[in-house]
Amino acid sequence: MARFFKNRSAVQGKSPDELIFIGRQKVDSVKIRMIQYNESFIEETAGDTLAEVLKNRKEECITWLDITGLHDTKTIAAVGAEFKIHSLTLEDIINTGQRPKVEEFDQYISIVVKMMRLESSDGKIHSEQLAIVMGNDYLITFQERPGDVFDPVRGRLRAMKGRIRRAGSDYLGYTLLDTIFDNYLILIERLGEQIEAIEPMLIDHAGPETFSLINEYRRELHFLRTAIHPARDAIRDFSRLESDIISPSTFIFLRDLNDLATQADEAMETYREMLKNQLDSYGASSANRLNEIMKFLTVFSAIFIPLSLLAGIYGTNFAHVPEFQLRYGYFFFLGLLGIVAIGMIIFFKRKKWL
Amino acid sequence: MARFFKNRSAVQGKSPDELIFIGRQKVDSVKIRMIQYNESFIEETAGDTLAEVLKNRKEECITWLDITGLHDTKTIAAVGAEFKIHSLTLEDIINTGQRPKVEEFDQYISIVVKMMRLESSDGKIHSEQLAIVMGNDYLITFQERPGDVFDPVRGRLRAMKGRIRRAGSDYLGYTLLDTIFDNYLILIERLGEQIEAIEPMLIDHAGPETFSLINEYRRELHFLRTAIHPARDAIRDFSRLESDIISPSTFIFLRDLNDLATQADEAMETYREMLKNQLDSYGASSANRLNEIMKFLTVFSAIFIPLSLLAGIYGTNFAHVPEFQLRYGYFFFLGLLGIVAIGMIIFFKRKKWL
Amino acid sequence: MARFFKNRSAVQGKSPDELIFIGRQKVDSVKIRMIQYNESFIEETAGDTLAEVLKNRKEECITWLDITGLHDTKTIAAVGAEFKIHSLTLEDIINTGQRPKVEEFDQYISIVVKMMRLESSDGKIHSEQLAIVMGNDYLITFQERPGDVFDPVRGRLRAMKGRIRRAGSDYLGYTLLDTIFDNYLILIERLGEQIEAIEPMLIDHAGPETFSLINEYRRELHFLRTAIHPARDAIRDFSRLESDIISPSTFIFLRDLNDLATQADEAMETYREMLKNQLDSYGASSANRLNEIMKFLTVFSAIFIPLSLLAGIYGTNFAHVPEFQLRYGYFFFLGLLGIVAIGMIIFFKRKKWL
Amino acid sequence: MARFFKNRSAVQGKSPDELIFIGRQKVDSVKIRMIQYNESFIEETAGDTLAEVLKNRKEECITWLDITGLHDTKTIAAVGAEFKIHSLTLEDIINTGQRPKVEEFDQYISIVVKMMRLESSDGKIHSEQLAIVMGNDYLITFQERPGDVFDPVRGRLRAMKGRIRRAGSDYLGYTLLDTIFDNYLILIERLGEQIEAIEPMLIDHAGPETFSLINEYRRELHFLRTAIHPARDAIRDFSRLESDIISPSTFIFLRDLNDLATQADEAMETYREMLKNQLDSYGASSANRLNEIMKFLTVFSAIFIPLSLLAGIYGTNFAHVPEFQLRYGYFFFLGLLGIVAIGMIIFFKRKKWL
Amino acid sequence: MARFFKNRSAVQGKSPDELIFIGRQKVDSVKIRMIQYNESFIEETAGDTLAEVLKNRKEECITWLDITGLHDTKTIAAVGAEFKIHSLTLEDIINTGQRPKVEEFDQYISIVVKMMRLESSDGKIHSEQLAIVMGNDYLITFQERPGDVFDPVRGRLRAMKGRIRRAGSDYLGYTLLDTIFDNYLILIERLGEQIEAIEPMLIDHAGPETFSLINEYRRELHFLRTAIHPARDAIRDFSRLESDIISPSTFIFLRDLNDLATQADEAMETYREMLKNQLDSYGASSANRLNEIMKFLTVFSAIFIPLSLLAGIYGTNFAHVPEFQLRYGYFFFLGLLGIVAIGMIIFFKRKKWL
Repeated sequence: MARFFKNRSAVQGKSPDELIFIGRQKVDSVKIRMIQYNESFIEETAGDTLAEVLKNRKEECITWLDITGLHDTKTIAAVGAEFKIHSLTLEDIINTGQRPKVEEFDQYISIVVKMMRLESSDGKIHSEQLAIVMGNDYLITFQERPGDVFDPVRGRLRAMKGRIRRAGSDYLGYTLLDTIFDNYLILIERLGEQIEAIEPMLIDHAGPETFSLINEYRRELHFLRTAIHPARDAIRDFSRLESDIISPSTFIFLRDLNDLATQADEAMETYREMLKNQLDSYGASSANRLNEIMKFLTVFSAIFIPLSLLAGIYGTNFAHVPEFQLRYGYFFFLGLLGIVAIGMIIFFKRKKWL
Repeated sequence: MARFFKNRSAVQGKSPDELIFIGRQKVDSVKIRMIQYNESFIEETAGDTLAEVLKNRKEECITWLDITGLHDTKTIAAVGAEFKIHSLTLEDIINTGQRPKVEEFDQYISIVVKMMRLESSDGKIHSEQLAIVMGNDYLITFQERPGDVFDPVRGRLRAMKGRIRRAGSDYLGYTLLDTIFDNYLILIERLGEQIEAIEPMLIDHAGPETFSLINEYRRELHFLRTAIHPARDAIRDFSRLESDIISPSTFIFLRDLNDLATQADEAMETYREMLKNQLDSYGASSANRLNEIMKFLTVFSAIFIPLSLLAGIYGTNFAHVPEFQLRYGYFFFLGLLGIVAIGMIIFFKRKKWL
Repeated sequence: MARFFKNRSAVQGKSPDELIFIGRQKVDSVKIRMIQYNESFIEETAGDTLAEVLKNRKEECITWLDITGLHDTKTIAAVGAEFKIHSLTLEDIINTGQRPKVEEFDQYISIVVKMMRLESSDGKIHSEQLAIVMGNDYLITFQERPGDVFDPVRGRLRAMKGRIRRAGSDYLGYTLLDTIFDNYLILIERLGEQIEAIEPMLIDHAGPETFSLINEYRRELHFLRTAIHPARDAIRDFSRLESDIISPSTFIFLRDLNDLATQADEAMETYREMLKNQLDSYGASSANRLNEIMKFLTVFSAIFIPLSLLAGIYGTNFAHVPEFQLRYGYFFFLGLLGIVAIGMIIFFKRKKWL
Repeated sequence: MARFFKNRSAVQGKSPDELIFIGRQKVDSVKIRMIQYNESFIEETAGDTLAEVLKNRKEECITWLDITGLHDTKTIAAVGAEFKIHSLTLEDIINTGQRPKVEEFDQYISIVVKMMRLESSDGKIHSEQLAIVMGNDYLITFQERPGDVFDPVRGRLRAMKGRIRRAGSDYLGYTLLDTIFDNYLILIERLGEQIEAIEPMLIDHAGPETFSLINEYRRELHFLRTAIHPARDAIRDFSRLESDIISPSTFIFLRDLNDLATQADEAMETYREMLKNQLDSYGASSANRLNEIMKFLTVFSAIFIPLSLLAGIYGTNFAHVPEFQLRYGYFFFLGLLGIVAIGMIIFFKRKKWL
Repeated sequence: MARFFKNRSAVQGKSPDELIFIGRQKVDSVKIRMIQYNESFIEETAGDTLAEVLKNRKEECITWLDITGLHDTKTIAAVGAEFKIHSLTLEDIINTGQRPKVEEFDQYISIVVKMMRLESSDGKIHSEQLAIVMGNDYLITFQERPGDVFDPVRGRLRAMKGRIRRAGSDYLGYTLLDTIFDNYLILIERLGEQIEAIEPMLIDHAGPETFSLINEYRRELHFLRTAIHPARDAIRDFSRLESDIISPSTFIFLRDLNDLATQADEAMETYREMLKNQLDSYGASSANRLNEIMKFLTVFSAIFIPLSLLAGIYGTNFAHVPEFQLRYGYFFFLGLLGIVAIGMIIFFKRKKWL
């Protein structure tokens, strides 16, 4: 279960001007990748320091700067100085426990979301914070560690066709967010399949392991929700911004992204309710089964109780018990037991207790 | 239980410009039907390719183009090119896991809803996505497979009377949506009848099969809600659009449609609460019945316990037990058992435990 | 329990221009009553056809036309033609499963509510749809069957005093709605008294019949809510209309009516919560009582178990049991039973289990 | 438990022009008190009729008219005529089942709230309706019966110092409402203390009387909420009125009053949730305790069951039972019992069932 | 558990002009500290009376006046007179049961929040009311007792660097609130860690102490929520104020503070739901365990019941019992017991009850 908070104590009382990295360091060194492109041109550069990479920067291009590794606050500060990023934005970038949000500044729009993907190697969900700073002709992404969900986007950039090469940094930002939300949906879909697979179990063979599964999926859905639900709010804010950075033709895509986010949110709500119903059903059916057992056993015991009393009565040592003298007393006694037992079984059957 | 998601992985990272069909292919080949009409004229054309059908297109008519089968993305793309439909709309049309929505574009309004109907052959609910593109003098419907709920509408078109032949494509769109919502209401009504039929069962003979029924209806209602609830939101947006495509005289019909949608939503809410109450009642009454049985049996056992002890006492082999010497010791013992039993029955009756 | 839906299948796919009556026919023939009045004049006319009644219509009067019986769609259509009523309004009038609503049209305001009253003959709630069409100098009411709650209003009209004779059709409309809501409050009040009467039962003698009562009242409240809750929304819309038909001096009465509606809604909410609490209390107290019984009986059994073992031990047939040789062995045994029993009773008392 | 409704049937169908008192008559005769004051002058007058009191009315004073007793509709009507009060307001005044509300009329603001106070004699909450009519230079209060919470206000008026003597009728109105809300808070605080006193009980000795207490407090809180919650809404409306009667300098006090009302509402919400949690805790802990007892007793019985079987086996009368011949057979038997008992105790201890 | 109310009775009916301290007196004497600073200058003064401290006040400085101890209403009144603070604000300052809020007055903004911190000495949460009065060039803080969370802020002031020395009283106010919310997050984070630590307990060894922990954390979270939730509302109001006192460059920080507050609120909501789920899981798993025990023991008893009857039958004293005559009757009997026992065990195993 992921922790919902990062270590706030470290920054307590510090000025927002000082950059303090909170979170676990996930890479050894910072990696900087730059893709510059326009309709007719594309160039990729990579390096370890900002200066090294930026010296290749060209005019009349869209620049996508991708920075992996947040622990090196000097690099982050250098990016901040170069692109005139507000100290609060920088603080958000390195504070990896940030709530997903979109903020508009004079020169850029800052976006913070969780980037989630299914690691194919171990089948686990990997989640990290992604911060985007989107300026007029540049877009910077800040990632916690190597590996992201953006390879298809890079492929489309390199392919030299499609809208992405003709459009500006705003469309690139939309494409990245769209890819992130597509991955959210894939995760929700996968969890949803697992949740729906519980339904038949509930009818056939609901045991404690079903209960564990339901609880595990609840926790997993809960984890997804804490990331995706505020991201949806952020996307809604984003699609309503009135900023010069976003061109009118991009707005229609943001509206579509907003729908995608709403769909993700509703799907989670749907599965949440389904899990709740499954838990109810599980509780009801396991109570039912126990009750059936208890009822059977109680009725079973009740039948034997009078028989035992009869045996007890004929086990007393009174001097004069008429039945003892009968030649077939013992068989009379066995018959009596049988009659009483059958009588009680009929009684309980009539009452529908058996 | 229907799946709530279509396969997102297939489109992950793809540009919205590329059309990729997700969903199961439900027909072998695409069928295109065209109805052209105005107040004095009506003509129906059908064919397998768009070009074949459109060559019959006439001026000064309302054109209703009905395309069945979404897997052939070439045909969809051709329709998109012919009618200048935005790539995002085309993507929505072929992505059959789309959330119901209404979107306004410059030249048309796009509407996506689920079309649901009761298949008379097997009594099951068939649900498919219906996309409507509503332009100034044309309306295009995209269906997943043959068979729809629109035959009455076609009948009214052919009947050469009524408002529908005099009005524009906006009124045709309203009529189609009205028909779809009428079908929603029929499905809700049918489910509602089944739910209301549970009420008397709860009083007379609530068994596990009642519990199964309640759960089945909950799932079915849940399935209806995931389609109808967002459709209501879409209709509300639709009735508030300020578009040139919708003529003022049609607005009053959209308001009526909005009321119908609200009614559908409230009815589902009503049945949802009814099911919840039924589940509570079922739980309470089945617990009650079990408790009654357990109480009876426990009291029953408790009465026999002292009797058994008495039998045990007179079964001991002590040398000098005064009662054994009595001539009528055995009958005294039987009487004692009777007195104790009656005493306890009176005690439990007084306590209202029997 | 009333059905929450009328038969939609009948109108499926029909044009709103065709009037189709859905609902059960509740009267044999249509009755039309007309009251015309102004400050100095009042005249009542009744008849079976519209033409017959309307030929008496006078100028400079407020006309209240009351039509009982909705199955005769010809009469409804005639009224519609005479007063230029939109086909959607006519459809609402004869569709008796209509959701309560208020709609403004160019020439009139249409209002649909449920009229509920307590039938004094059988103590049951009778509910029917009432549609009001309120024009500048006329008001038409459409009822499903004879008998309504408006006799006091007719009395006030005839009394030739008070505001109602001086004011217009808007004030008449307000008065009718006020009377309907007064009846709602009477029904809620009556149900509320029954619900409050459960409280003392819960303390003294909560049995299964209390449980039945609570469930019955829940269903009844639920039934009231499905009619009154949307009616409140309709009244709120009504009190906010900016229509020429409503004179400024009437608005203050509509505001008051709105308060009445809110009060009705809150009262239902209050009773709903009270019923929920009562159900909780019932569940808790009946579980409590069962638990008390089970605990007592289990402790009771537990006391006898060691005593029975002792009796069993001295019932064995071993050759050499020292105690058997004692002269007062039997009494020693009885004493032992007593000591063990008292010891266990003390133990359980200390544990507060008895 | 107070009734939530007054008798609506009495006014059903009556014109708002007729004043009909609903509610129980709580005083024998009407009492009218008048306090007239300005910065330099104060005079108190009391009497039984309006004319008698009003003949002392002076100019250039704020007049506070306090009328106790609502059953005498003639006096109310006289006040209405004198101060030009709308018939709907008069109806609200004498209808003591009125929902708290604030309404603005041309010449005055009408306020209806519940006045609640703790009767020191019997420790019970006394609740009555208080209606305030606040005009430009007068304020009229209508009470159901003698005794109110306003003595401190009267004291401050007589004290000839402080803002109240300098300010207008709007400030007097604020002061009265502030006093009423102060009394609400005192009642909530007192109930809150009782509720918080339950917490330790839940840990130490939660018995049925704790359950009763929780239910009693729930009902009491519920009763407070039905009065205070709508009063908060009324105060919010009041603090947003744009009326000439309220001077700008008073608005800041109304904002403060609004905060007080919000605080009262939140406090009730807090206690409501606390009670809910307490009920959950009570349920869980009493179930826990019962379970502990049942478990102990079941284990206790289970230990004796095999022992009894052994005793039974050696109680059989077979001719050749080898153990019977043993010299120390009986002691061997007793030892066997001990070994089995100890074995089972160890088994249950290992399973953590004991 | 902290009390949610302060003693309102003390102020009942008093004029807002009179200052009455409610709350417990937490310090012996009032302490006043003043920090004056601008970009180039800083001076700290401390004293016991206002006059003593204020005589050092300099022009062209930001003055931060920190008053510790609220019981001395004379000092509070003197501050009020000196800085022209409204009597309602003064009342809020000394009423330590005040709901967190932000209010704008002509000359200043007043802010009331709870200041919470973890006392390192005893690991307990200390909570006190902090009132801030923020004027154009001054800021006054009112604390209940010595010790606060502002030492890092004082350190940054003294450090003569960073934005805080260059900015105005609005930025100082933001910094103080930011520090307070940072402390909220630290408290939530610490509680969150404890709550998350319960998860593994629920799987391994959920006992009554787990139940106590969950309840304790619920109460603690509840306590935090009553302080932090209204504080969030206050911060939202604050970030939306349009006041001259707040400079435009500070607004971006207030927006950030607003995000922080939202994050705190959502985190509490997340943990609240987690606790609720934990309680459900605990209930389900402890019921499960008890059920397992009960089922085992009931089955165990059921196996012995027929065996005991057999022993009882052969313990009867009938004269002619054929089996008694058999040479190996006893062994036949023991074998019979074994067969019956094994048969029942197989039966229960098949039924999956064992």
